[in-house]
Amino acid sequence: MARRNYIFSTIKRVFEKFGFQPIETPAMENIETLTGKYGDEGDQLLFKILNSRQYEAKNKEELLKEYRRSLENNINSPLLTEKALRYDLTVPFARYVVMHQNEIVFPFRRYQIQPVWRADRPQKGRYREFYQCDADVIGSNSLLNEVELVQMIDEAFTAMKIPVTIKINNRKILSGIAEIIGEKEKIVDLTVAIDKLEKVGIDGVNKELIEKGISPGAIEKLQPLLNFKGDTRQTLSLLNSLLSGSGIGKKGIEELSYIFKTISDGGLQTAEFILDLTLARGLHYYTGAIFEVKANNVQIGSICGGGRYDDLTGIFGLPNVSGVGISFGIDRIFDVMNELNLFTEDAEKQSATKVLFIHANETELASYIPVAARLRSNGINTEIYPDLVKDKKQFDYAVKRKIPFIVTTQPSGMQLKNMSSRESKIVNTQELINILK
Amino acid sequence: MARRNYIFSTIKRVFEKFGFQPIETPAMENIETLTGKYGDEGDQLLFKILNSRQYEAKNKEELLKEYRRSLENNINSPLLTEKALRYDLTVPFARYVVMHQNEIVFPFRRYQIQPVWRADRPQKGRYREFYQCDADVIGSNSLLNEVELVQMIDEAFTAMKIPVTIKINNRKILSGIAEIIGEKEKIVDLTVAIDKLEKVGIDGVNKELIEKGISPGAIEKLQPLLNFKGDTRQTLSLLNSLLSGSGIGKKGIEELSYIFKTISDGGLQTAEFILDLTLARGLHYYTGAIFEVKANNVQIGSICGGGRYDDLTGIFGLPNVSGVGISFGIDRIFDVMNELNLFTEDAEKQSATKVLFIHANETELASYIPVAARLRSNGINTEIYPDLVKDKKQFDYAVKRKIPFIVTTQPSGMQLKNMSSRESKIVNTQELINILK
Repeated sequence: MARRNYIFSTIKRVFEKFGFQPIETPAMENIETLTGKYGDEGDQLLFKILNSRQYEAKNKEELLKEYRRSLENNINSPLLTEKALRYDLTVPFARYVVMHQNEIVFPFRRYQIQPVWRADRPQKGRYREFYQCDADVIGSNSLLNEVELVQMIDEAFTAMKIPVTIKINNRKILSGIAEIIGEKEKIVDLTVAIDKLEKVGIDGVNKELIEKGISPGAIEKLQPLLNFKGDTRQTLSLLNSLLSGSGIGKKGIEELSYIFKTISDGGLQTAEFILDLTLARGLHYYTGAIFEVKANNVQIGSICGGGRYDDLTGIFGLPNVSGVGISFGIDRIFDVMNELNLFTEDAEKQSATKVLFIHANETELASYIPVAARLRSNGINTEIYPDLVKDKKQFDYAVKRKIPFIVTTQPSGMQLKNMSSRESKIVNTQELINILK
Repeated sequence: MARRNYIFSTIKRVFEKFGFQPIETPAMENIETLTGKYGDEGDQLLFKILNSRQYEAKNKEELLKEYRRSLENNINSPLLTEKALRYDLTVPFARYVVMHQNEIVFPFRRYQIQPVWRADRPQKGRYREFYQCDADVIGSNSLLNEVELVQMIDEAFTAMKIPVTIKINNRKILSGIAEIIGEKEKIVDLTVAIDKLEKVGIDGVNKELIEKGISPGAIEKLQPLLNFKGDTRQTLSLLNSLLSGSGIGKKGIEELSYIFKTISDGGLQTAEFILDLTLARGLHYYTGAIFEVKANNVQIGSICGGGRYDDLTGIFGLPNVSGVGISFGIDRIFDVMNELNLFTEDAEKQSATKVLFIHANETELASYIPVAARLRSNGINTEIYPDLVKDKKQFDYAVKRKIPFIVTTQPSGMQLKNMSSRESKIVNTQELINILK
């Protein structure tokens, strides 16, 4: 938890520097709020809450009839269950925005770090309860938001010392490509196929395109893009000529160009920032920018992602509210930091105990109490071993708890010992404070 | 949330200064872990999770039969529900300690701040989801733990500027009293009655004692205690003579005397610390010290409480592990701070936006981006209004969000304006940083 808290607090600090404010929503939502939002598979993965006092109910026959009906039709029965645990943070956030639309000051910048629950078969890297960590700006069309989200990603991973590549794409460019090659209706098949370029190569992509019924002419037109190797500037210039006949495509290029220009003016601290035309995550949902972040040199999926959506709250009756957001994958970031050995002493130890007082008898124990109070009032995390046991046992406690300093009483006074260097020194209280601070 | 986070982070910091480490447990526990631990009423208030994929089940007839059986017998059916949301932090903690007994280094000092759920009728001050905030030391019999818990309570409320009285009692003294007056078996009735002294007066207490069948002789013997008015030292001295014939009573006096002596040696920062013989909370559970904290001059229940228990983990098969802990009532502390107007600017604003950049056009907006980056890298929470709208609208946003400073562009340069004093000043970036820091 010390490690996870380090990640949380680092990301939180970045969110707050950019003016994002925290919200929390309840663990339970009404079932209707959640069902139908995550596809059929998602509906099956909701943890549903049994209505309380079921067994006390007077109308037991009615409950039984209703349960039979729900089993037979494979549907929820509101007599049995009306609430479910949240499945992600996005849908509760949309519900929250609609519910509080009259109190919220737009543009609304919120962040939210809470657990979500999925009734999945647990396995390595897939848990039934896990944290999500989202930041969104809602009610603003400005591309400055996209720029700032990229800056935030850069700042968070710079702080955590994780070298990353931030990939960006734009749904409008994908739409433009589909339009130009004459396969507007098949944009999903098209992007799903292109998405696999790195994995299966050009021939593999072309094969899948044929299978999906994309016309040979369209596939032909797509080849310059699939074969193209160049940096972001060159790619944008190719797109410019390729998509000159598509209004939506040109809009996408314009948006991307603004974001790249603005970011290259300020520069990022450590992240690489590239255009990746194969990036198509959440296509059914995103309408503008699409982000994805990968840790360099680590074989692990994306550790952060997001994009712009134009109608988050429409399903709850508040249409046309544009938003853009990102989500940090805490569990994967945790794995990356472990793999790269990035949990420094600082990261881990900032909340841990710094010093343990070890005593030979009750008098020594008592003498430590005022000293410990002074250390704590100087912000030093301090423990006195509480029980009267052999000093060996107290020393073992310090070792097992990885407490870096111990204090014992010697004939000449208090002795401070550094547990890693094994150096020790006779000190008074003030010296103790100075050294431990 | 900014206010609640302030309370959490203040208490957390105190926990860590005293060597307590955070743990979190999952929201869901097996139903058997929770049932039978909170009384019948508690069992009814558990939020139970419907087993997933109910409606996909093949054995629908069996499910129905089982549901009928559970309804008819008013019992849980494991086919219907196997998991429930945690009801408090204590039982999951006990389960955790037993499960991880071989990895845990004892004495184990843990704190835990998480929501709990109760299927109660929601009303003011009673929520279906609320936070608990517990700290416990487990596996240590030392009274130093009691002393440190009192110091922690004092430090936390001192930091939050809430004047409090910490009341302490000891279960062993209550047992001693029951023993001395010859009503050992009726200790619960006895303490429940004494607990009402402040509310109903001596006559009221005596009336209840008669009703509960306490003998006239026993009630007679109790009168010196009920009538006694004195400070802690005087009370302890009265108890010393009164309980001289009770072994357990004398042990209780000894424990309390040690705690009072040790604390008066070091002194507390602001809290009053008193012995209250009428304090009997959680009697069925506590075996030694009993704590309760009240905010002075505020009509609200206790805002923190706890005590020593000797067998937290016995129900899960690990007997004889003594522990002592406290729990902060976050919601009530929140109410007290509101009532006493203690949420200072600092408390509320530490995570809020400090400055908003307001622009007249795209060029100005662009010019702010590098300035904002420098402010943020100096730790200043900064926003640039993202959309190209009238400055009036941007200004209104600053007012509604209570952002304390705004920056606009004037012919002579950037102008910083203090929103409360209305003073303004032309500044360069470095001056901006110096002022806002």
